[in-house]
Amino acid sequence: MTSLLSRRPAVVVGDLVAPKAGLRPDRERLMSTLDALASFGLRPDGSVCRRGFSHEDRQGRDQLSAWMKDAGMQVSIDAAGNLIGRLAGSDSSLPALVTGSHLDTVPTGGRFDGVLGVLAGLEVARTLQDSGEQLRHPFELVVFADEESTMVGCKAMVGDASPDPEAYATSNGVSIERNLERIGGDWSSLASARRSDASIAAFLELHVEQGGILETRGDSIGVVEGIVGQRRFSIVVEGQANHAGTTPMEHRQDALVTASEVVLAIEAMALHHPNEPVATVGRLEVWPNAANVVPGSVKLTVDLRDLSPAVLQELVESLMLALENIGLKRGCRIDLDPQFDVAPTPADSTVMDAISSAASALGFSQSRLPSRASHDAQEVGRRWPMGMIFVPSQGGLSHSSAEFTSDDECWAGTAVLLGALQRLDQQL
Amino acid sequence: MTSLLSRRPAVVVGDLVAPKAGLRPDRERLMSTLDALASFGLRPDGSVCRRGFSHEDRQGRDQLSAWMKDAGMQVSIDAAGNLIGRLAGSDSSLPALVTGSHLDTVPTGGRFDGVLGVLAGLEVARTLQDSGEQLRHPFELVVFADEESTMVGCKAMVGDASPDPEAYATSNGVSIERNLERIGGDWSSLASARRSDASIAAFLELHVEQGGILETRGDSIGVVEGIVGQRRFSIVVEGQANHAGTTPMEHRQDALVTASEVVLAIEAMALHHPNEPVATVGRLEVWPNAANVVPGSVKLTVDLRDLSPAVLQELVESLMLALENIGLKRGCRIDLDPQFDVAPTPADSTVMDAISSAASALGFSQSRLPSRASHDAQEVGRRWPMGMIFVPSQGGLSHSSAEFTSDDECWAGTAVLLGALQRLDQQL
Repeated sequence: MTSLLSRRPAVVVGDLVAPKAGLRPDRERLMSTLDALASFGLRPDGSVCRRGFSHEDRQGRDQLSAWMKDAGMQVSIDAAGNLIGRLAGSDSSLPALVTGSHLDTVPTGGRFDGVLGVLAGLEVARTLQDSGEQLRHPFELVVFADEESTMVGCKAMVGDASPDPEAYATSNGVSIERNLERIGGDWSSLASARRSDASIAAFLELHVEQGGILETRGDSIGVVEGIVGQRRFSIVVEGQANHAGTTPMEHRQDALVTASEVVLAIEAMALHHPNEPVATVGRLEVWPNAANVVPGSVKLTVDLRDLSPAVLQELVESLMLALENIGLKRGCRIDLDPQFDVAPTPADSTVMDAISSAASALGFSQSRLPSRASHDAQEVGRRWPMGMIFVPSQGGLSHSSAEFTSDDECWAGTAVLLGALQRLDQQL
Repeated sequence: MTSLLSRRPAVVVGDLVAPKAGLRPDRERLMSTLDALASFGLRPDGSVCRRGFSHEDRQGRDQLSAWMKDAGMQVSIDAAGNLIGRLAGSDSSLPALVTGSHLDTVPTGGRFDGVLGVLAGLEVARTLQDSGEQLRHPFELVVFADEESTMVGCKAMVGDASPDPEAYATSNGVSIERNLERIGGDWSSLASARRSDASIAAFLELHVEQGGILETRGDSIGVVEGIVGQRRFSIVVEGQANHAGTTPMEHRQDALVTASEVVLAIEAMALHHPNEPVATVGRLEVWPNAANVVPGSVKLTVDLRDLSPAVLQELVESLMLALENIGLKRGCRIDLDPQFDVAPTPADSTVMDAISSAASALGFSQSRLPSRASHDAQEVGRRWPMGMIFVPSQGGLSHSSAEFTSDDECWAGTAVLLGALQRLDQQL
């Protein structure tokens, strides 16, 4: 563990003043669990590979299960493979205050994405246990199954998981039935993972930002306003493949020149919108893709994200208008084909206020921002009041070995999570 | 043959007035040899597949060899596999007047590209034979080996063929040594295919235009001013791959957005140049090419063609300037890597004048134009006075089953070839 700990540069965050009263998480204990968990799937280059349902994922879950039991939690696994630890509240009639995130990673993941939110929840439980204090509400910590791929865990909890096993593109190519069995779930009773409305009071998720906004602003805590919606399209530009020598410039219907105008129009659309949405052409393929042939057709994808459904709709309408104008000007046919449409999930104002208030009480600088990546909270927030706490990601990097959040920042996020839960415990 | 002939629409070309005197090629004989030759490699969709060195190519060459012998020609095959028919001239001390083109096609070729030039040469020999007239100069018809792929035939005749067998990317994957052997050539004596300066007086090639300029202008005959030079580059744009959700628009170094500006700059450069060069980005590949990732790098090709070396150089300099400006503006590194540089081959003014004069005497409308595709004449013209005659391609199409030049147009080109040869025979 020493070698892992020593990789972290010493970061001194000026405004992390130790608060004067109340429960505080244990920074060293938090960081040592983070280090321990990173060992499951750690690679020589410092990245972590802990794909959902893998051996390493199960190792991590088993470790967490043991830690939760040690922290006095009652541990269970639902049909969707969500690993759930529960501390009783003083009033057993109340719905649960729930936190959680995921332990699975992308193939070359980092040490913080997902894990931090889970281990912060564990640290909250340990802190409560140590203090002998009990919340009024039951407190639950959920390790959601397979967030980086199928999101089967959070979707099943909400009741939005597809009943069609073919709908699950698992990262290991194994069927979802078999994968769930591996982690203690049960495909045949997947619907039972759906929680009743009355079982949850609110959901909080602490997560690393995976972007550079907090770092740029110099803030320790991000109060997430919601998780952006996403609209994905496929665009096909049909021109006329032709001889690159004998076809004069003014007689061409060059699908790539046309697609280039489309790419720039999409960028301009997002860049000049006051809401600061993002728009990306990430995939583009040319046919026949030969140096001596004027391109005949181009296929590309557009990914649009914003917190406001109205802004998303505006972007789609601007896109359609741009495609029509470019197609007419260039003599190419342009077809737009919707791939998917995920509605934004706004955060709950009471939960946001509880996070803000906890951060203020602890003396942390904070600001509000949308989450432009998807999270378990995006699904959970469709049914229950939801809030997310972001902590800074150095250089905005994530999904790589370079992913980094300092010890102080991890601790600050955990302290705010605890504070926000305590406030909601009083208010709800 | 009837079924093939019946595919041709009846085209009446108003200005194809039968001239009053002199030798005239036989239109029906010309077209029946074209039909006969199209049968070697003819596919159900009407396209022709007669790749260099293939069984079909050898069938075509054998047929031609027989026809040349019947026309009184002495037939030989040089070390590069060029099939050569020769009629003696009345003055055996004179160098040869040479015409020729190729019989091989691209994988889905048409009935005219290459073949017409060869069969027009055969028709000239037959017409001379029928008339009993003899030129002063020896007359040669050359079927160049593998024009659509390695161009080994024309290059070896000039003395520019590579002595490295690895340098030949043959279309069938078989070694150049073995391929030459198949058609009666001999790799071990390839250098012997190089003709002496004094053996050739001039070279003429009749070819379909493979573009739409003559059709647009309404001209029957194109007097080619030369074959454009070509400069090919590979460009690599290096940006920063990033999360398509969490990376704000203004913090991106998007390699595809940058490459799109490059594509449009290249088009504008050629489109606004008074010399009417062509510039094509035919190939473009994105990395990592995932819908949810801001593109990290893009690789593309640029193909520049013009008749003037100065214009080509100007385009390259404009390109370098554009890349520098775009790279700076976008925060991306852009590298330009030369792939090849083929110098333009200007046509000889005496040969052009002979073509013009023959076309005028026959009453055909004509205009001058560059060839923007490469031809055997491009190589041959590097050492001997060269001229090309173009006839119209319907819709500018070639390298497809839709390639079409009418009977009258084919005949007109052949008549001009004969007339130009007669004029050069007197002048040179």
